[in-house]
Amino acid sequence: MLAFYRALQQALEENRAAVAARILQVSPELKEVLKPGARKLYYFSGPGVGELGNKEVEGIIASQVEEVLKRRKPQWVHVPLGEGWVDVFLEPVLPEPHLLILGGGHVGQKVATLAKEVGYRVTVVDDRPEFANRQLFPQADEVICDSFASALDRISIDPSTYVVIVTRGHRHDYDCLRRVISSPAAYIGMIGSSRKVKGIMEGLAAEGVPRERLARVYAPIGLDIGAETPAEIAVSILAEIIQVYRQGKEVKSG
Amino acid sequence: MLAFYRALQQALEENRAAVAARILQVSPELKEVLKPGARKLYYFSGPGVGELGNKEVEGIIASQVEEVLKRRKPQWVHVPLGEGWVDVFLEPVLPEPHLLILGGGHVGQKVATLAKEVGYRVTVVDDRPEFANRQLFPQADEVICDSFASALDRISIDPSTYVVIVTRGHRHDYDCLRRVISSPAAYIGMIGSSRKVKGIMEGLAAEGVPRERLARVYAPIGLDIGAETPAEIAVSILAEIIQVYRQGKEVKSG
Repeated sequence: MLAFYRALQQALEENRAAVAARILQVSPELKEVLKPGARKLYYFSGPGVGELGNKEVEGIIASQVEEVLKRRKPQWVHVPLGEGWVDVFLEPVLPEPHLLILGGGHVGQKVATLAKEVGYRVTVVDDRPEFANRQLFPQADEVICDSFASALDRISIDPSTYVVIVTRGHRHDYDCLRRVISSPAAYIGMIGSSRKVKGIMEGLAAEGVPRERLARVYAPIGLDIGAETPAEIAVSILAEIIQVYRQGKEVKSG
Repeated sequence: MLAFYRALQQALEENRAAVAARILQVSPELKEVLKPGARKLYYFSGPGVGELGNKEVEGIIASQVEEVLKRRKPQWVHVPLGEGWVDVFLEPVLPEPHLLILGGGHVGQKVATLAKEVGYRVTVVDDRPEFANRQLFPQADEVICDSFASALDRISIDPSTYVVIVTRGHRHDYDCLRRVISSPAAYIGMIGSSRKVKGIMEGLAAEGVPRERLARVYAPIGLDIGAETPAEIAVSILAEIIQVYRQGKEVKSG
């Protein structure tokens, strides 16, 4: 029990997404091996902590972890096992959003500032040293000056990552979206007119990216509040991210 | 013409809401007195600058100023005059929003910080010196430590004022709302649960405030994005204010 809570706390401290599983109810036949109250913490990747009491049940729950993290809502699962059954309660343990801002221009700068006000962890990537620097992003947790391709190869994207694609141009946006579209990110938003967005989507579909994956993308980015200035656009993006984070909008698994 | 543009620039610099009127078309009978292209700048209060050429027409346009500022959209007006008519184009000249934050608590602080990021002018009022001070509001344009009643007696509220009511309690919110409900503010938002909001609205209706005026109030305040923390609530409030500012949501004149 203590090990479970230690692991839970550590997951939160390390900003690792996890799912806390707890046995709710067990049919009489299985009471010997599965105990109500037994807990196991599942990480998005890697081995978990704790035991539910039965490897088959643990495996079935493990296969649900990604889905629970994507829905970002607690749920329970009814698992039939031989003659009996067990009900397991699954709760997502989500760190504060990790904002990955691809593009260090005006909008990226304002998004970074606002996101820090909200308490999020912020990483900024740009390939231009005059944009990816500490002067422009004093509060960001990480500023990476590298090509988007190379940076995205190194950055780990998990279900608590929110990706904001606001590079300086169509080609870079396209490239970034192609590299993050298959990730388990909670949110992928891309700036641009409906026309540009449509062009990029058609290009990616022609490359073989499934339509369901493309439908996950929030584009044009941000809530529709008539935003015009970079700061107003940043507010609309943050409002959209908070909505996804808090209301656990269903993300299509693609 | 030059006087008109000087006045226009000055209105913007002084954050005064105004309406720019220009004669578009004139019926043949009136071409002697009313010239297409003639301009006059109307302030929300006080005398205007420029001349349209006929006092009766100028008076009729003056009576439309408040409505144009409330709608925040350009429009034209057809004015019959004797045997003829004149078409006048009216354009609202709106300074950046002036945010009047009533209440210096957690939400007020975050709203102030975000509003400055967006470029708005910010005034904060609280009656407690430990909340209405420069340490908590380093970027605000004005921090007023006074009773809400006395502060609101002195602050001028015009169609570019956005009022955010986030005091520490029900009674102060009630008092503030009662004092601003009849103002020409572009936006009045009040924090609180639906239940609290309903109670306040019923109290004011019982005091004789018309229902149409109460319907103007954005309450519960902020876009519905599931905001929980003060910073998230502040983002939802700013997003709502940007929406009203940019999309000129129709405000009932009450």
